Amino acid sequence: MAQRPNLLTHFQNLVVESQNRAMAAQDKYKFVFTAKEAASEGVTEPIRLPKLIRKAMSLARGPISKYKVGAVGRASSGRVYLGVNVEFPGLPLHHSIHPEQFLVTNLALNSEKGLRQLAVAISSDCIEFGAPCGNCRQFLMETSNELDIKILLKSKHEAEGSFSSLKLLLPYRFTPDDVLPKGSPLLLEKRDNCLTLSGSTEEICSSDCSHLKCKALAAANNSFSPYTESPSGVALQDDEGKWYRGWYIESVAYSPSLGPVQAALVDFVARSRGKGFNKIVEAVLVEKNNARVSQERTAKMILDTIAAPNCDFKVFHCYVDLQKKFITE
Amino acid sequence: MAQRPNLLTHFQNLVVESQNRAMAAQDKYKFVFTAKEAASEGVTEPIRLPKLIRKAMSLARGPISKYKVGAVGRASSGRVYLGVNVEFPGLPLHHSIHPEQFLVTNLALNSEKGLRQLAVAISSDCIEFGAPCGNCRQFLMETSNELDIKILLKSKHEAEGSFSSLKLLLPYRFTPDDVLPKGSPLLLEKRDNCLTLSGSTEEICSSDCSHLKCKALAAANNSFSPYTESPSGVALQDDEGKWYRGWYIESVAYSPSLGPVQAALVDFVARSRGKGFNKIVEAVLVEKNNARVSQERTAKMILDTIAAPNCDFKVFHCYVDLQKKFITE
Ligand SMILES: [Zn+2]
Ligand SMILES: [Zn+2]
Ligand SMILES: [Zn+2]
Ligand SMILES: [Zn+2]
Repeated sequence: MAQRPNLLTHFQNLVVESQNRAMAAQDKYKFVFTAKEAASEGVTEPIRLPKLIRKAMSLARGPISKYKVGAVGRASSGRVYLGVNVEFPGLPLHHSIHPEQFLVTNLALNSEKGLRQLAVAISSDCIEFGAPCGNCRQFLMETSNELDIKILLKSKHEAEGSFSSLKLLLPYRFTPDDVLPKGSPLLLEKRDNCLTLSGSTEEICSSDCSHLKCKALAAANNSFSPYTESPSGVALQDDEGKWYRGWYIESVAYSPSLGPVQAALVDFVARSRGKGFNKIVEAVLVEKNNARVSQERTAKMILDTIAAPNCDFKVFHCYVDLQKKFITE
Repeated sequence: MAQRPNLLTHFQNLVVESQNRAMAAQDKYKFVFTAKEAASEGVTEPIRLPKLIRKAMSLARGPISKYKVGAVGRASSGRVYLGVNVEFPGLPLHHSIHPEQFLVTNLALNSEKGLRQLAVAISSDCIEFGAPCGNCRQFLMETSNELDIKILLKSKHEAEGSFSSLKLLLPYRFTPDDVLPKGSPLLLEKRDNCLTLSGSTEEICSSDCSHLKCKALAAANNSFSPYTESPSGVALQDDEGKWYRGWYIESVAYSPSLGPVQAALVDFVARSRGKGFNKIVEAVLVEKNNARVSQERTAKMILDTIAAPNCDFKVFHCYVDLQKKFITE
C-alpha cells in the first residue's frame, strides 16, 4: 500500500511536467507580453527591450534571405510585442513583411493605441540595434504618435545604447498630414468603415458567429485605407479550425502598404504556435466591388503559393452602408 | 507661272510646320536631355533643375492618387532625366512607380553610371522641393555613389534652395554594403548575368535580331538581383511594332525592389511618346526556372490589368551559362 501515494505522485509529476512542457512551448511562440510578463523576461524598463530579442529572432521566417530579423516594441498600454521578418519563397520581394511592419500590424490587430519604443536587431548576435530601413520608417508614419516613437540605437561597444526618434531618423518626411484632412483617424486610432456584405439575404449574424466571411468583413471594417478608399479584410482557417484575420493597411507613400493577406499572416504567425503556412486550408477575402485597389488576384497568388494545396479561397464583395455611416459620424 | 514658286513655298511651309509640330510633340514627351538641351531649357547648373519640373509633372500618370509628381535628376554624364509617378488602377499600391524610382531605372536603362543631383517637387505649383519618401531613400541606396547624391530642398519662401545629401536624409541606414561581398557591382555599375535561354536549339541570334525573347534575355542579363540571384527581364511591343525593355532591380531592404514589368513600363513611358498601356500588344518575360523570386504570375497579373485585352504574354526560362561566366570573371 506504500506504493499508492508514490504512484499518485508519479502521475502528478507527469501531469505537472506535461503542463510545464506545454507552458514552455507556449512561451516559445509568444508574441505578446503583459508588462509583468515582460519584466519577468528582464524587460523592466524600455531600454531593456533587447532582453526579448533572441525570442523574437527565433520566431523569424526568412527562407529567402536566410536572415532571422527581430524587433521588440512597447505599446502605450505597457504591453511588449515581438516582430519578425516573414518571407515567401517564389513570390516577388515586395510581399515580404519586415519585423517593424509585423509588430505594428500586430499592435493594430490587438487594438493598441500607440507604439512607444522600438528595438530592432541589426546583427545576428543580437548585440547591435539600429534604425528601421527607409521603407519601414515610411510605414511607421501612419501611426498616430509617429514622431514620438523612440528607436533604440546601440553599437556593439555600448552596454545599453540610447533612444533616438523617428523625427530625427526621417527628416523632411512625407506624412499622412500632407494628404489627409485634419483630424482623420490614423492607423492605431479607432475606425469603422461601415461595410456590409453585398447581396446578403441572410439574417444579420451575431457578433460571435463562426462564418469566415463575417470575420473577414469585420477585418475589412478595421482596414486603414484612407488614400484609395479600398478597404479589405482577410480571414484564414487552419487545419484545426482555428481562425486568423487581418486587414489592409495603406501608406501615404503607397509602396510600403501592407496587403490584407500579409496582415492575416501576421495574426497566423503570432497565434498559430509555429504552424507552417501549408496548414491554412480556407481563406476569405472581403473587398469592395470595382475597388480602386483590388486584392483578389494578389491574394489568390499568395495563397496558391504558400497555403495548403487544396486551400479553399473565396471572395465576397461589400459596400459602404451609408445609413450606418451616417449614424456613426 | 508666278504661282508655282508660291505653291512650292506653301508646300515647303506645310512641311516645315509639320516638322515643327512633330518636334514640339517630341519635346512634350522628352524624358532625356543632353546637357546642351537642358541648358536651353534653363537648366544651366544643378540648382536650376526645377526649370524642367513642369515638363516632368505634365508627363506623370497618377490615376489613383490624381497627383502628378515629378522629379528631375542630373546624371554623372551631364545628361538630365525626368522622372514621374506611374500608378495602376485596380492593382495593389506596391506596383506603383515613384518618380525617383522611375528616374533611376531610366538611368540604368540608358547605361548611366551615377546620379549626381535630384530635385523632387512636393507641391503641385512646382515651387517647393523636398526629400524622397522613405521607400525611395532606401531604393536609392542601391546606386553606386548613393551617399553623394545631392537632394534639392527648397521651401516656397526661397528663390533657389540648397542641396542636402542622402547621407543626411537617411541616417543609420541599411545599405548593400551590409550584405554584399566587398566590390560587388552596384545598380549603375557594369554587370553581365551570363544568362542563356533554356532548351534553345536555334542558332545564336545576332545582336540586332528582332525576337522579343532576345530583347528580354538581354534585359535579364542586365538585371540587378544580387540578393536572391533571380534576375529577370521583360520586353514589350506596342501596336506599331516598337519595342521596350526593362529588368528587375532589387533593394537590399526587399520591399522597395522594382519588378521587371515596371522597369519595362519606365522604358515605355519614356519612349512611347504618350501612348496608353493598352497599346502594348505583346510581352515576353525571361527568368530562371524555379527562381527563388518568380515574376511570372505577377507579370501576367499586371499585363492582364493594363495591356491590350488580347496582349500575348510569353515566358521563357534561362540559366547561367557557367562557361560564359568563367570567361567574364
Ligand atoms: Zn524595414
Ligand atoms: Zn456570420
Ligand atoms: Zn518615393
Ligand atoms: Zn533573336
